[in-house]
Amino acid sequence: MSQRKLRLGAFLMQYGHHVAAWRHPDAPADAGQDFAHYRRLAQTAERGLFDAIFFADGLAVRGENEVAARTAHADHFEPITLLSALSAVTERIGLIATVSTTYNEPFNLARKFASLDHLSGGRAGWNLVTSASEAEAQNFNLDAQLPHALRYQRAREYVEVVRKLWDSWEDDAFVRDKASGQYFDPAKVHVAQHRGSHFQVRGPLNVARPPQGYPVLVQAGASDDGRELAAATAEVIFTAWQERDDAQAFYQDIKTRAAAYGRRAEEILIMPGVFPVIGRTEEEAAEKYAAIQALIHPSVGLGLLSGLIGADLSGYDIDGPLPELPETNGNKSRQALMYDIARREKLTIRQLYERVAGARGHRTILGTPTSIADQLEDWFVHGAADGFNIMGPVLPGGLEEFVTLVIPELQRRGLFRTEYEGRTLRENLGLARPANQHLAARQHDLQTA
Amino acid sequence: MSQRKLRLGAFLMQYGHHVAAWRHPDAPADAGQDFAHYRRLAQTAERGLFDAIFFADGLAVRGENEVAARTAHADHFEPITLLSALSAVTERIGLIATVSTTYNEPFNLARKFASLDHLSGGRAGWNLVTSASEAEAQNFNLDAQLPHALRYQRAREYVEVVRKLWDSWEDDAFVRDKASGQYFDPAKVHVAQHRGSHFQVRGPLNVARPPQGYPVLVQAGASDDGRELAAATAEVIFTAWQERDDAQAFYQDIKTRAAAYGRRAEEILIMPGVFPVIGRTEEEAAEKYAAIQALIHPSVGLGLLSGLIGADLSGYDIDGPLPELPETNGNKSRQALMYDIARREKLTIRQLYERVAGARGHRTILGTPTSIADQLEDWFVHGAADGFNIMGPVLPGGLEEFVTLVIPELQRRGLFRTEYEGRTLRENLGLARPANQHLAARQHDLQTA
Repeated sequence: MSQRKLRLGAFLMQYGHHVAAWRHPDAPADAGQDFAHYRRLAQTAERGLFDAIFFADGLAVRGENEVAARTAHADHFEPITLLSALSAVTERIGLIATVSTTYNEPFNLARKFASLDHLSGGRAGWNLVTSASEAEAQNFNLDAQLPHALRYQRAREYVEVVRKLWDSWEDDAFVRDKASGQYFDPAKVHVAQHRGSHFQVRGPLNVARPPQGYPVLVQAGASDDGRELAAATAEVIFTAWQERDDAQAFYQDIKTRAAAYGRRAEEILIMPGVFPVIGRTEEEAAEKYAAIQALIHPSVGLGLLSGLIGADLSGYDIDGPLPELPETNGNKSRQALMYDIARREKLTIRQLYERVAGARGHRTILGTPTSIADQLEDWFVHGAADGFNIMGPVLPGGLEEFVTLVIPELQRRGLFRTEYEGRTLRENLGLARPANQHLAARQHDLQTA
Repeated sequence: MSQRKLRLGAFLMQYGHHVAAWRHPDAPADAGQDFAHYRRLAQTAERGLFDAIFFADGLAVRGENEVAARTAHADHFEPITLLSALSAVTERIGLIATVSTTYNEPFNLARKFASLDHLSGGRAGWNLVTSASEAEAQNFNLDAQLPHALRYQRAREYVEVVRKLWDSWEDDAFVRDKASGQYFDPAKVHVAQHRGSHFQVRGPLNVARPPQGYPVLVQAGASDDGRELAAATAEVIFTAWQERDDAQAFYQDIKTRAAAYGRRAEEILIMPGVFPVIGRTEEEAAEKYAAIQALIHPSVGLGLLSGLIGADLSGYDIDGPLPELPETNGNKSRQALMYDIARREKLTIRQLYERVAGARGHRTILGTPTSIADQLEDWFVHGAADGFNIMGPVLPGGLEEFVTLVIPELQRRGLFRTEYEGRTLRENLGLARPANQHLAARQHDLQTA
């Protein structure tokens, strides 16, 4: 049996994941509007045999004030359009887009991902989010966002609806027989006729079944609702942990919850984010980190931390402790993580924002290619991760260094592929292609008849 | 002053515009899932210096029965994903996608088109439709569709909302000054704060202002509501007329209505669809047409005509006249056109479907390259058209013949460009780049101060 291989995602962001990346001399001038920049990033990740590239997303500008004006969040491509364009200039790498279940109709979402999956020959992945900000709600005819629990109830039904739509056509429904004039077999098309608590969708979808059956389903929520949804439905989980034992506990928790849904451990791949700062020596890595940290404006650090906590910290003493605040309707897991770090390391507000500004709560790993590989291997072999989502501090350089310096070291250790195993994202991730639920039902009828 | 040039759109459809195109020996095997087919079509149209490629769209499968199963409408790419992919493999041609105002949130639509406009360097166009079928409504949480007039009221407000969102950022809002740490100028971002009868959207959009200011706005509705919306907002109008005097009357009506909104005649380009059947001789063209007509299955012809009329004709005598039917909540202009043709040419149901099956109500022009050019020139110089939307009967051949045989003839006559004039779709169409409404307001304040 072949050695278990680790999975790698390239988490891309305009200028890089460090909050001051855009100010770095090596960052592009206008990444948010520069397709050539993303083409280069995608092709670099593919050269490095990454499983996928991944884009986060939000449906609002995070403020229009002086602080926000010092960050580079406001202008970026919409992920589905960007990944569709990138599908035309790549061959093998997976394409994972974040799309909200709260602000998109299931028919439109099912269709766009089916379309992207066909365009790319089976390389699409959907990172399901429920959206957690008032600013987003206000762009979609609401005064305030839906409650957390309701968003997750809707999300559960949403997955059910889009899977029904992706199963509208059996894989061999389109016969396209020019001689007889039969284009599809009417016995192999299925209407969803979905009437649930939140959605009413007839179907069928007007796109053939995706090459992957379903695009790969990704999630990142770590609240109790989020974990339960992920255990039931997710195939890849992006997550954020600083400490190995926390990551191990999460890993174990998700795989245990998944078992309760009849799923095997290898059907869910857990990929923590890491923020690698790579030097030829430890000193060079430390210097690179100091140089980029020096570019953080204090008002930006404070604003960023307020965003992670989900509350405005600007009224508190910047050199005092993190105040105890009531729970918000925001991202609970990220909020809890910030409190954990502050308490464990006894940090002031200023120290905390310096600590998390770069990697936004993800794990910073700093060192030589060998020590970076050691740190990845340690989590991988000790039940803390099935792979990692690589968050280059400044792009494209941070990704290019990883591909040139770290990937060969991982390959030397037998931890990472030396060529793509398959044509689709599913095949490369070692995930089975789901059967069509209608076909499964029909076979069940035959067996029990 | 340079001679007025005609505008050309390449209206693409999976296998071609003839209802039996997919059965033709030259049609691809599985166009709805074959990106390489569309890449070839887009690059062919660009080689021919077309202004734009254009995709229609619908948000439902048109039936799952035996008749529908003989047509090729059920499986096709979603237009925004497809055009995004095509933006990466073309340089100069415009990219026009049909998207419904009834089943997409304005924030999402504004964002996707802004993103496509940036990806393509200013080549995006939006064909606004309000969607007109019960099947679509049933895919979006409704039992039945909204009334015609209400759909158009919503559409009018919708255009207002998306323009506000495209104007969120002034063109020079993003200063991106690495040295000072100023990313954008907060004085140059504007929240929409839209609160209307149908939409409530705060903004700003999280994409910079599109290169074209606004993507080119296209419409095709020819009902009274549709004409009025087009006169107020559209820059390109796709339309369907069989006879020159009808086309002239429409042309004059639209330009007169537009004047009432303070718009000049050249700000709205009217482009009827034409379905060219091209032969080296008239006889060859006629033979080609007969060969493709012979591929129409009678049940398909009847089903197609029922769709155009908006009523089920299967209960009527196929060799009798078209029955008088009550007005439906469907596409009124297409319905009226069918009755006009049937009355003028005294056609039975069968003769009518044979007459319209190919071009679906658009004008069939059959002949040699010279006679095709004559027919286009006639409408162009006699106030019936500013250009044409070319609907190849079978693709890619129908487009390739037009590019190879007809374009050079149009160029010889000085009617068509010999190179692209500009970089953006707007520049090539000779349409002005709209000013930002906030900037215009500010300049007005300065002038009146």
